[in-house]
Amino acid sequence: MCELFGMSSRLPANVTLSLEEFIRHGGAVGPHADGWGIAYYEGKDVRVLRDTAAAATSACARFVQEHDLRSTLVIAHVRRATVGAVTLANTQPFCRQLGGRMHVFAHNGNLPGLSELGAAQHFAFHRPVGDTDSEVAFCLLLARLTPLWQEGVPSLASRSEVVRRFAEEIRLLGPANFLYSDGDVLFAHGHRRTHEPHGEIRPPGLYAVRRSCVGGPHRLEGEGLTIASDHPADQEVSLVASVPLTAEHWAPMGEGEIATFREGLPAGS
Amino acid sequence: MCELFGMSSRLPANVTLSLEEFIRHGGAVGPHADGWGIAYYEGKDVRVLRDTAAAATSACARFVQEHDLRSTLVIAHVRRATVGAVTLANTQPFCRQLGGRMHVFAHNGNLPGLSELGAAQHFAFHRPVGDTDSEVAFCLLLARLTPLWQEGVPSLASRSEVVRRFAEEIRLLGPANFLYSDGDVLFAHGHRRTHEPHGEIRPPGLYAVRRSCVGGPHRLEGEGLTIASDHPADQEVSLVASVPLTAEHWAPMGEGEIATFREGLPAGS
Repeated sequence: MCELFGMSSRLPANVTLSLEEFIRHGGAVGPHADGWGIAYYEGKDVRVLRDTAAAATSACARFVQEHDLRSTLVIAHVRRATVGAVTLANTQPFCRQLGGRMHVFAHNGNLPGLSELGAAQHFAFHRPVGDTDSEVAFCLLLARLTPLWQEGVPSLASRSEVVRRFAEEIRLLGPANFLYSDGDVLFAHGHRRTHEPHGEIRPPGLYAVRRSCVGGPHRLEGEGLTIASDHPADQEVSLVASVPLTAEHWAPMGEGEIATFREGLPAGS
Repeated sequence: MCELFGMSSRLPANVTLSLEEFIRHGGAVGPHADGWGIAYYEGKDVRVLRDTAAAATSACARFVQEHDLRSTLVIAHVRRATVGAVTLANTQPFCRQLGGRMHVFAHNGNLPGLSELGAAQHFAFHRPVGDTDSEVAFCLLLARLTPLWQEGVPSLASRSEVVRRFAEEIRLLGPANFLYSDGDVLFAHGHRRTHEPHGEIRPPGLYAVRRSCVGGPHRLEGEGLTIASDHPADQEVSLVASVPLTAEHWAPMGEGEIATFREGLPAGS
């Protein structure tokens, strides 16, 4: 099972994440990862760290855990290989340029049949580099978004509409939890954690939590997760993850629910 | 002055590079960098590490120096900000998807007037994220290459022809030393180090060196540079840089010369 983590905040926060803890929260025992990645936005660009090694043995993962990387928008992913080999090209989050800014996508689940669905006609430009269904999904989303990003930043309503239709479409194929950002807004789509048969209990695919802090410095801590900002102003932080990562109450997202965040607050639509 | 470094090898090599030494070789004293980056290819994808902090104080730079990152194709860049602010988006190497693989570009020099030249008509898709002339140059190159990358890997002759014409064009604007790769071939374009007036001595913009090693393990060392491979087979390594980085004889590249490398050897055209 893959794990997703997203953060949106008003002020830049230092985000350090222990990937081992992140995986353990997901119910796995030990360093069962076939790659992981984390993306920290800096304006319209993004710093992406990815590795194909298990988080426990990865020098890159230690680097993420030990260094305070500061951002207002973070997306992370830990992968258990279900589709595609364990290569860098199959390691999320994926990152591509569109409309003069970097777009980032991470997906949890499996979407059989997507390559066939999305092939050829959609991939004039946004082509997959690796061979996961998740990257094909991202290419499909980018192709749908391309007409919007021709001049300046399109309205959130128009972007949300494209994301909503895209989510609707891929939900038919399998578990379709994803985080997506264009550097302005963080989109989270909750679906279901596993592809359970009907009638059984289906755990939610994503949980969300929000915290407002009056005055600084601020610190939000979970097991293996630290989000700290030293600014004296008020801070707003919204988190989304496959499983709750702090002791606070995390609200499960509904099946097919899409949440949008900007500067730590709901961005509306 | 920016510094460029490129490596192509037959067998994956562990490349560790001290950015401080790299800069010092270029004639600067102390950690005078306004950002740096290094790209390690892994198949069609690439691992890019970039930072806007001076190499001497950057945790990322220490990471590059201390960890053996293995690749057969590496491009690195150290920046002295001449155009554009010191932001991640202005930090090279730049990396973009085209034809289902990642393309990487790093440029040394300044190309006044390029934004005007390349604007609008060329940037239907490949748009700059930051505001350097170097990134505009890369977008221009990608736009020119796009028709070739419609199905499979185009012939080297056709790619070389596009690179040659592009180089010719940007040489008119200013110092145009660059390294470019599509993950298959490393292209190096040597021009001139600075925009000297006519009649003065103009140091070359790039130097190249090649070493063949029969049987392994292999080690190629300079001050602050180590390229090591532990494979028992024969190794071939070609290096290109703004200034010689090892004690061996590095051949200066001619003004306007383009060299191509694949698996450590000249790739022909």
